Amino acid sequence: MIVVRTVADLRAALYPRRTGAVGLVPTMGALHEGHATLLRAARAADDTVVMSLFVNPAQFNEQADLAAYPRTEEADLALAASEGVDIVFAPEAAEMYPAGFATTVSVSGTLADTLEGAERGRSHFDGVATVVTKLLLAALPDHAYFGAKDAQQVAVIRRFVTDLGIPVELVVCPTSRDADGLARSSRNTRLSPDERAQALAIPRALSGIQDAATAGLRDTAALRAQGLAHLEAAGIHPEYVALVDPVTFAPVDEVAQPVLVAIAARVGATRLIDNIVLGGA
Amino acid sequence: MIVVRTVADLRAALYPRRTGAVGLVPTMGALHEGHATLLRAARAADDTVVMSLFVNPAQFNEQADLAAYPRTEEADLALAASEGVDIVFAPEAAEMYPAGFATTVSVSGTLADTLEGAERGRSHFDGVATVVTKLLLAALPDHAYFGAKDAQQVAVIRRFVTDLGIPVELVVCPTSRDADGLARSSRNTRLSPDERAQALAIPRALSGIQDAATAGLRDTAALRAQGLAHLEAAGIHPEYVALVDPVTFAPVDEVAQPVLVAIAARVGATRLIDNIVLGGA
Repeated sequence: MIVVRTVADLRAALYPRRTGAVGLVPTMGALHEGHATLLRAARAADDTVVMSLFVNPAQFNEQADLAAYPRTEEADLALAASEGVDIVFAPEAAEMYPAGFATTVSVSGTLADTLEGAERGRSHFDGVATVVTKLLLAALPDHAYFGAKDAQQVAVIRRFVTDLGIPVELVVCPTSRDADGLARSSRNTRLSPDERAQALAIPRALSGIQDAATAGLRDTAALRAQGLAHLEAAGIHPEYVALVDPVTFAPVDEVAQPVLVAIAARVGATRLIDNIVLGGA
Repeated sequence: MIVVRTVADLRAALYPRRTGAVGLVPTMGALHEGHATLLRAARAADDTVVMSLFVNPAQFNEQADLAAYPRTEEADLALAASEGVDIVFAPEAAEMYPAGFATTVSVSGTLADTLEGAERGRSHFDGVATVVTKLLLAALPDHAYFGAKDAQQVAVIRRFVTDLGIPVELVVCPTSRDADGLARSSRNTRLSPDERAQALAIPRALSGIQDAATAGLRDTAALRAQGLAHLEAAGIHPEYVALVDPVTFAPVDEVAQPVLVAIAARVGATRLIDNIVLGGA
């Protein structure tokens, strides 16, 4: 496994490998089993696996969140090596955003303005879209791997990849969960034991909604109220519990097609998100 | 020469030609000798020459200007064939902007806000940046050719190509001029004979500024005043006469480094632009 710090070195390393398929797994480091799942999917499908490791300042609306984001490069490189990654692209911020940088890739409309876009601010998804465009153009992979936990991020990425015609196939892997059901996240390391127990109300609220929908409850307002009650009973006051179209993120009244159920909530100081799809494939 | 209407067909046509260099000449049609110069430059340097032909609605701030923009596809295809173009990519608007399209590539700051950005509105360069990104990603050329007449457009394109890391080398060809000095433009066909005579004050004002600078006048305010006086004497009230840094478009006080002199003016109903670089390479 080699580690490169510049786009030029990444391209040079990829050049002789272009005869085979290239897979890219973009990460912000602080790797956990969820990332390992993505790396394994890439390893199984592609001849060359590239993992990017870049904590993107442009997508953090809170400086405190950026500063507190865990940075564990040594452990991350060890995990990448153990999962058979060929190339790690770990640039400094100055490589990605040199002096004079002035370009933004932006997705407009409900998809980017709602939920995470509303809570984290308009600039969050601009930051995501701009850096992911740069990573995709740097590596020009055949496949890029993302986790379903970041459902809205995946939908935004799918939107601009389609709109701009970036030549890549997106592969979305199911949310990876701990045995107790909590969605794996780099932020989970910040939870105290009590907070972690409290956080389980999030996947349980989602499971409860899933069960109610499976039992025939189709009214999204009623499903949402049930999930909200579950969270409030655990002392969690969520930023949102939303039932929306998984592609456009437009609100949905009834479960007649696949519906994304998304929750964001702070547990202590830690912001967590999770989601499921009802009636999905 | 083949004509393709979809990105998929363009990529399929280019696929077997990727062993050689690919050059892209983006145009909005209404081809003239200026475009021919770009096509010849591409023909001389690249194994495969792609010309795109798309009147991009997103970069027109005035519907009347869009509606009046000359469309001469048959003659354009004949000219392309005579210049040895291999592939013409001539999509419909629905191919470039299908339903649900929601992505914008945007350059911020002085470069995009000033001069053309101020006169034609913020959305003009967003429209240019978005469509050129799409064209570059559709063709993935080794070289893309642009005319120096659209100096600010070229600077904006250079900015986002660098910032996003689009893997292409930009080639800027000198402004092509008629024997009388008028910069060639698809819009020139709209000028009446009288208007055309009047329009010559634009290249003459630029030449006058060039001569004064060569003679030692370095103060940009004085150079600007001279150009303005030249235009006003011909009955032209320009939108701007500007002396700026050719890369950042920041105003410049003195000619101590290359300075771009840019003029935009309406002659009758037709909007014309022209420029020169003082002290440039």
